[in-house]
Amino acid sequence: MFSVPYILHEIDDGVMRVALRIAYDGLAFFGHQRQPDARTVEGECISALRVAKILRDPKEAFFRSASRTDRGVSAIGNVIAFNTAFPPRAVVGAFNARARDVWAWAAAAVPESFHPRHALQRWYRYHLFSDISISALREAADVFVGTHRFDSFTSDPAPGPMAIDRIDVTRDGSTTLFDIRARSFRRTMVRRIVAAALGYAKGEINLAEIRTALRGARRDFGVVRPEPLFLMDVRYPFVLDVLLKPKVRDELRAIEVGAEIRRRFVRALHESVQEPR
Amino acid sequence: MFSVPYILHEIDDGVMRVALRIAYDGLAFFGHQRQPDARTVEGECISALRVAKILRDPKEAFFRSASRTDRGVSAIGNVIAFNTAFPPRAVVGAFNARARDVWAWAAAAVPESFHPRHALQRWYRYHLFSDISISALREAADVFVGTHRFDSFTSDPAPGPMAIDRIDVTRDGSTTLFDIRARSFRRTMVRRIVAAALGYAKGEINLAEIRTALRGARRDFGVVRPEPLFLMDVRYPFVLDVLLKPKVRDELRAIEVGAEIRRRFVRALHESVQEPR
Repeated sequence: MFSVPYILHEIDDGVMRVALRIAYDGLAFFGHQRQPDARTVEGECISALRVAKILRDPKEAFFRSASRTDRGVSAIGNVIAFNTAFPPRAVVGAFNARARDVWAWAAAAVPESFHPRHALQRWYRYHLFSDISISALREAADVFVGTHRFDSFTSDPAPGPMAIDRIDVTRDGSTTLFDIRARSFRRTMVRRIVAAALGYAKGEINLAEIRTALRGARRDFGVVRPEPLFLMDVRYPFVLDVLLKPKVRDELRAIEVGAEIRRRFVRALHESVQEPR
Repeated sequence: MFSVPYILHEIDDGVMRVALRIAYDGLAFFGHQRQPDARTVEGECISALRVAKILRDPKEAFFRSASRTDRGVSAIGNVIAFNTAFPPRAVVGAFNARARDVWAWAAAAVPESFHPRHALQRWYRYHLFSDISISALREAADVFVGTHRFDSFTSDPAPGPMAIDRIDVTRDGSTTLFDIRARSFRRTMVRRIVAAALGYAKGEINLAEIRTALRGARRDFGVVRPEPLFLMDVRYPFVLDVLLKPKVRDELRAIEVGAEIRRRFVRALHESVQEPR
């Protein structure tokens, strides 16, 4: 892997193509794809870029996203790309000055033909907060790895054979992490795979049922809720330069402190209930 | 201390007075006291009680709160009281079915004359998330304990001599807890005491300046932000019966999970930034 391979490919008259790595809070948006009357991730990105005069028209700028995450899903490292007259570093600052609940934290100049959807690999992480058997989850996870038909594991039209590169199930404190990597995913796919693995871990279904579905038989194993799912990373044959501005650090710190206040609120209340007065 | 001492004091024609212990999320409200166009804690409580037909008119029902917490401050155990025809247990269920961001979790039947402001003691907890010397905070805290003039430590009119019963400064993980107990407090008082103690711990002021202020000289040591402050408890010579409904447990669990998702979002982002790709 090499760093920022395509320095300032001038497309036309000072215009270049820039890729931004963005993180966002899925709870703050009504999904990813632009909609006229709802606050969406793409809508917020485009509006921030427009106000900052980084781009005028998203169509003209060939604005594209790597992954259209399901509504409620957060991202640590999704990627957007567009044509602009501004260099990558300037774009990061201008974007973060305007965007709310979405943060740009890395950037690169990329060739004119770059479409962020064409990635080497995507990595999703699902968080499970209930107490569940790790070994059972791993058994189910192993069934999914490799090339299968995922018709029963997406709300998109049947996608044909797809490959899951890898699934890791690990424990982190009282949380179970379900990390899944593949070149691409379809809508609700990660959440349907997790639902099936959970169904097996809970003894509600057996592995043969999952295998049958992966051979193409239609079966609905349900879908887990979107909020605990993060798109962790989208990888390309090059890296994007990290640029974490103080403003972004401050906003992240504020989120962290807010979360700690909430956690302590619930804990204090539980403790008070234990010792009535 | 004894449990629920005043069982069903009938005031008039089946009407009794009920005290509810309530917790609320200060971030969800624009302060405590009722206002015509803002969502406030009292406003939400009264509206929930009205919709549930627990009371009709708050004036007629002699609706009162123990503490009017500053805007942004959360409560674990504030107390409200009002006259109603419904017994305490029924009131808790009906209240929680309607109220949002505020939860009733204990109740008692109390005498007609009960005003929740007349309490034995109030306990506030301030959370400090920055790294600060515990021993310096304790030195400053000791100066406040006892009877003093707190004119410089409230945005209310000069209240005359008041007594702080006790202050405990402890460490809990990476958080410092500042627990302060007194019969009563005035507006912004805890936050101004914490600001002065922090000022001393940071070497910005000395203890003599605090002592001078506590003798009545006017001095402004600033005020810390409200969100990390919880009203933990308001104590009476009797206890309120705890009644934690499953719906409330579920809502608290959802808050906890939401906080954990936020915490992990920030952590994952920090980790990603460390290892650019």
